[in-house]
Amino acid sequence: MNELAELSYALDTFYFLICGVLVMWMAAGFSMLEAGLVRAKNTAEILTKNIALFAIACTMYLLVGYAIMYSSDAGGILPNLGVLIGGENGVDAVTAGGDDAPYYSMRADFFFQVVFVATAMSIVSGAVAERMKLWAFLAFAVVMTGVIYPVSGYWTWGGGWLSELGFSDYAGSGIVHMAGAAAALAGVLVLGPRKGKYGKDGSIHAIPGANLPLATVGTFILWMGWFGFNGGSELKLSDVASANNVAQVLVNTNAAAAGGVIAALILAKLWFRKADLTMALNGALAGLVAITAGPLTPSALGATLIGAVGGIIVVAAIVTLDKLKIDDPVGAISVHGVVGVWGLLAVPLSNGDATFGSQIVGAIAIFAWVFATSLAVWLVIKAIMGVRVSEEEEYEGVDLAECGMEAYPEFSVARVYGGSGGRPQSGGYGAGAPIGQPHVE
Amino acid sequence: MNELAELSYALDTFYFLICGVLVMWMAAGFSMLEAGLVRAKNTAEILTKNIALFAIACTMYLLVGYAIMYSSDAGGILPNLGVLIGGENGVDAVTAGGDDAPYYSMRADFFFQVVFVATAMSIVSGAVAERMKLWAFLAFAVVMTGVIYPVSGYWTWGGGWLSELGFSDYAGSGIVHMAGAAAALAGVLVLGPRKGKYGKDGSIHAIPGANLPLATVGTFILWMGWFGFNGGSELKLSDVASANNVAQVLVNTNAAAAGGVIAALILAKLWFRKADLTMALNGALAGLVAITAGPLTPSALGATLIGAVGGIIVVAAIVTLDKLKIDDPVGAISVHGVVGVWGLLAVPLSNGDATFGSQIVGAIAIFAWVFATSLAVWLVIKAIMGVRVSEEEEYEGVDLAECGMEAYPEFSVARVYGGSGGRPQSGGYGAGAPIGQPHVE
Amino acid sequence: MNELAELSYALDTFYFLICGVLVMWMAAGFSMLEAGLVRAKNTAEILTKNIALFAIACTMYLLVGYAIMYSSDAGGILPNLGVLIGGENGVDAVTAGGDDAPYYSMRADFFFQVVFVATAMSIVSGAVAERMKLWAFLAFAVVMTGVIYPVSGYWTWGGGWLSELGFSDYAGSGIVHMAGAAAALAGVLVLGPRKGKYGKDGSIHAIPGANLPLATVGTFILWMGWFGFNGGSELKLSDVASANNVAQVLVNTNAAAAGGVIAALILAKLWFRKADLTMALNGALAGLVAITAGPLTPSALGATLIGAVGGIIVVAAIVTLDKLKIDDPVGAISVHGVVGVWGLLAVPLSNGDATFGSQIVGAIAIFAWVFATSLAVWLVIKAIMGVRVSEEEEYEGVDLAECGMEAYPEFSVARVYGGSGGRPQSGGYGAGAPIGQPHVE
Repeated sequence: MNELAELSYALDTFYFLICGVLVMWMAAGFSMLEAGLVRAKNTAEILTKNIALFAIACTMYLLVGYAIMYSSDAGGILPNLGVLIGGENGVDAVTAGGDDAPYYSMRADFFFQVVFVATAMSIVSGAVAERMKLWAFLAFAVVMTGVIYPVSGYWTWGGGWLSELGFSDYAGSGIVHMAGAAAALAGVLVLGPRKGKYGKDGSIHAIPGANLPLATVGTFILWMGWFGFNGGSELKLSDVASANNVAQVLVNTNAAAAGGVIAALILAKLWFRKADLTMALNGALAGLVAITAGPLTPSALGATLIGAVGGIIVVAAIVTLDKLKIDDPVGAISVHGVVGVWGLLAVPLSNGDATFGSQIVGAIAIFAWVFATSLAVWLVIKAIMGVRVSEEEEYEGVDLAECGMEAYPEFSVARVYGGSGGRPQSGGYGAGAPIGQPHVE
Repeated sequence: MNELAELSYALDTFYFLICGVLVMWMAAGFSMLEAGLVRAKNTAEILTKNIALFAIACTMYLLVGYAIMYSSDAGGILPNLGVLIGGENGVDAVTAGGDDAPYYSMRADFFFQVVFVATAMSIVSGAVAERMKLWAFLAFAVVMTGVIYPVSGYWTWGGGWLSELGFSDYAGSGIVHMAGAAAALAGVLVLGPRKGKYGKDGSIHAIPGANLPLATVGTFILWMGWFGFNGGSELKLSDVASANNVAQVLVNTNAAAAGGVIAALILAKLWFRKADLTMALNGALAGLVAITAGPLTPSALGATLIGAVGGIIVVAAIVTLDKLKIDDPVGAISVHGVVGVWGLLAVPLSNGDATFGSQIVGAIAIFAWVFATSLAVWLVIKAIMGVRVSEEEEYEGVDLAECGMEAYPEFSVARVYGGSGGRPQSGGYGAGAPIGQPHVE
Repeated sequence: MNELAELSYALDTFYFLICGVLVMWMAAGFSMLEAGLVRAKNTAEILTKNIALFAIACTMYLLVGYAIMYSSDAGGILPNLGVLIGGENGVDAVTAGGDDAPYYSMRADFFFQVVFVATAMSIVSGAVAERMKLWAFLAFAVVMTGVIYPVSGYWTWGGGWLSELGFSDYAGSGIVHMAGAAAALAGVLVLGPRKGKYGKDGSIHAIPGANLPLATVGTFILWMGWFGFNGGSELKLSDVASANNVAQVLVNTNAAAAGGVIAALILAKLWFRKADLTMALNGALAGLVAITAGPLTPSALGATLIGAVGGIIVVAAIVTLDKLKIDDPVGAISVHGVVGVWGLLAVPLSNGDATFGSQIVGAIAIFAWVFATSLAVWLVIKAIMGVRVSEEEEYEGVDLAECGMEAYPEFSVARVYGGSGGRPQSGGYGAGAPIGQPHVE
């Protein structure tokens, strides 16, 4: 039966690779989402940031991150140091049979893992948009993808102490999404809000994104890529039970996103009196983040409800963060952080192997590790090179300051602090909302 | 040989899931296509509509649609009522062998089916763009995806009376595309044309889309997604004959799209004196719709010709509908409806198992069912909440009225009825075309 | 074991088809990349060109190209003439076993090959953008995809003389990318530079692209599609060694793209003092082109370095071509041609079966064939119908002249030769660069 074992190995390898391709595609989704939600004058820079962070993540994870995350001792806290990816499986090992026989390519495993760390890093870029120095951000990316993420990744998926504790996070509501949000929150606190976002009188100014079709296609790309993100995290396809599980995961992932859209859109309509597109988009992403910690065990209807709760949470979280003057231009901290916690806590509702206790411990441990180390790194970068562009550069747009070019050079674009362009606005989600006196100018 | 049966089950399940992911991706394609073909002032709303309809379709089909479509008696007209999706296959059933043994996951089947109903609904949104109330549309989406589509789906793919009659519609030229167009036509007739589209003197004003790169990427997305739409409809991959069939379907799907582009572009050049991009895009989609009813039996050359005829038909249909003052901003009724009928009629040309008689009966039955029930639902919605925005809202754009935001807040955009923006236009397909006196303002 | 052979056949067929879908998707990538890098007034036309060339490529390769490339005698120079694709494999042949038994669908092979020729043709369209007549370009596409590419394709992948010589080009750095660039270079030389690009005083005017988010998503699409382009070129998946190889190819493809981004971005920062987004995008593509000739044999770290060298080469090549007054609006000749040669030469560094001698002979032979025949075809087309639009049409934009429509009719756009729109520019890569006196106006 060696040929059967080989064929099975090939199918599982292919499954990992295709899922990895879909997760890589999420990098385009984040790029478009963020490019659509910032102002035109900051678009080229955020695009540069996104493609550069993906490249850095792939390279740093290859150099050291993967080794840290997956080559360290079982049950530990401190990882081993290590570099580069290991060897590939031989034919003999595969066809030897038994439970220990490798059933898919180690290279396919690396490919699937490397695009995950890029996802975590992509979450950061949106939150610090429109005022951070490009190279400060890229310096942070080196540390985040090379060390910070791999260490908490080792604690969980790598077999470290949280894994032994019973912490359950199927595809990474906490390990990837909340971790990215924790790094983002640290960056935002060091950086401060955009000029013009919060008035001295306590008012909150909506700063609409310049290109909502981009934000929408970005959301659809993320939705599509998430099928690889969650679907590949079953880690096996080649028997009936595994295949059924992968199918259930895709059904539930889709159902949760749908629930998130519906809930966020209805809540926005009731609260703000408008069918706020950006809230619908955030609702989709919230549904996806919410189901990511446990997409296998709920029914499809349960998944829809978990996503719907995520959609409600994200709207409330975005409004709340604005009241706290935590300026996150794309809502990344709310979508990936706040809803990521909800995702972790929702797991025990349908999965008897998880407990609220271990989920809470895991959430706190990952958040504390990523937030504390990120804060330290941001502060070091601030001391060395600064993290924020000058006031004039911020007014002119970071595109000119950092990239020496404009994203839309032929389309007339206004330059104002906190404004939205050349014509009066009815505001973003703030229109009619009971949050300060949201208006523009 | 249980392991072989399991592996085969895993491969067929994976095939369904990947094809389903590609079909889900078509939702992004419709969103971009429609967002590119409407004016800037109506873009945020159509994006909201598209993501919301996808979410509604997924949820309603989960709640009732799938049960109606696939749990009813063989050969019947009235479906059983039913809710939610059923159970999953056990390992024993799979490995028992025999012709009745399940060979892929029921969840994967649901995943593949649920994204089809979303496709049908997406067709509607473009046709009613730029003047319909958002929530009226969403209310219609609930009924269409929960009941109307599933009933005619039961008649055909679900094993109902049309199935027994020998009606042949491989991936749904009629069942999905023409059905969507029938619902759209009913909506357009209830709604009326956009202000400024048709002059009192009989003139027809071209209203160009605001963002043709979006329309183009939307078309490419749909082309790509169609490989899943048609390729997955073989329903099996795991033996030589099935694998060959899936490959033939992909070759033919691609060939038909290519034929549609070439034919539509040449016809537009001859007729309008211009290489009309929007006609090339519609030609691609027409080729795809045309081949969808029978992508397996023609040769690749035959598929190219079927697509080319579709490309010619769609250009003529768009011009004809405009003469009839049926205002369809994106050409959805022409692409999916008129060409969908051509697709059904082309099946017997290469497939000896199909007859023109059963194809015509099927086309009439599906159209009559969907059009009549849709018309009734649109009229009920009109009576309860109205279907059309006010004249002032239409002038200002539905983005502000419905979503409280603009899609491109920083780019200067003109506001005129039936106009195209701030600068003189040479018209859309109408330039040089013998249809009234097409001009703008 | 017939069932196992059938299942293996199905898996390999599926692998080809999915990789083919990813390569088809690259057509959207080229479209968006080019649409983003030209001025707004030339956007609709380049979109038309891209979808039309894809359709022409698919049709011409079906009619004659595939037969020329894959039905000719082993080792020869002159191909046989032939039309259409051949027959499909029967079940008996597959299950007969032995080394000669077909292991995947011939239709799947055609599908995978047909999207490659479209890739080669897509490379041409960007280089001749903004001043070529649409129908002259399409006429060239007919010959290029029907004859020119298939003949050199026969020499290499089709088993002709270069194949026997030991020329090694895994997925086509030379066969596809450099070939496309050679055809583009011939076209650019016949066509001349855009008005206003090069001043009479020797100055070089940066002409920024109108929509950088489009260029960025195009690059991500190409990156994603390249996993199919390179991954499918292993031509087999269904055993352990092949599966491991495919996984290595995907890891290396991704690593090389990452290396290209990082190297190009750092070089641009050092050279031009700006983090030039378009250089980062070109760096990604250069990394991908560089690894394409040999993505299997290097380690992941080696692939990163090969890509990084590609990223450095592309920046230097773009600057050099501008000095030579070879006007390539999107940098296609640099990315695909110059870096394509680097890719061919990098193969012997990690692959002992390749020699520098055969690589150089292959590069020269492919370039000479494609460049010479393309030049002849361009000159014939020029004599018959002309290749360049009038000065007035170029000033107004080829969108109005060729397509009778605008890509962004509602967004105010300036019309100037060589200018960049309505507001002062800080230039593209030229800002601060020591190349002439780059400025606008």
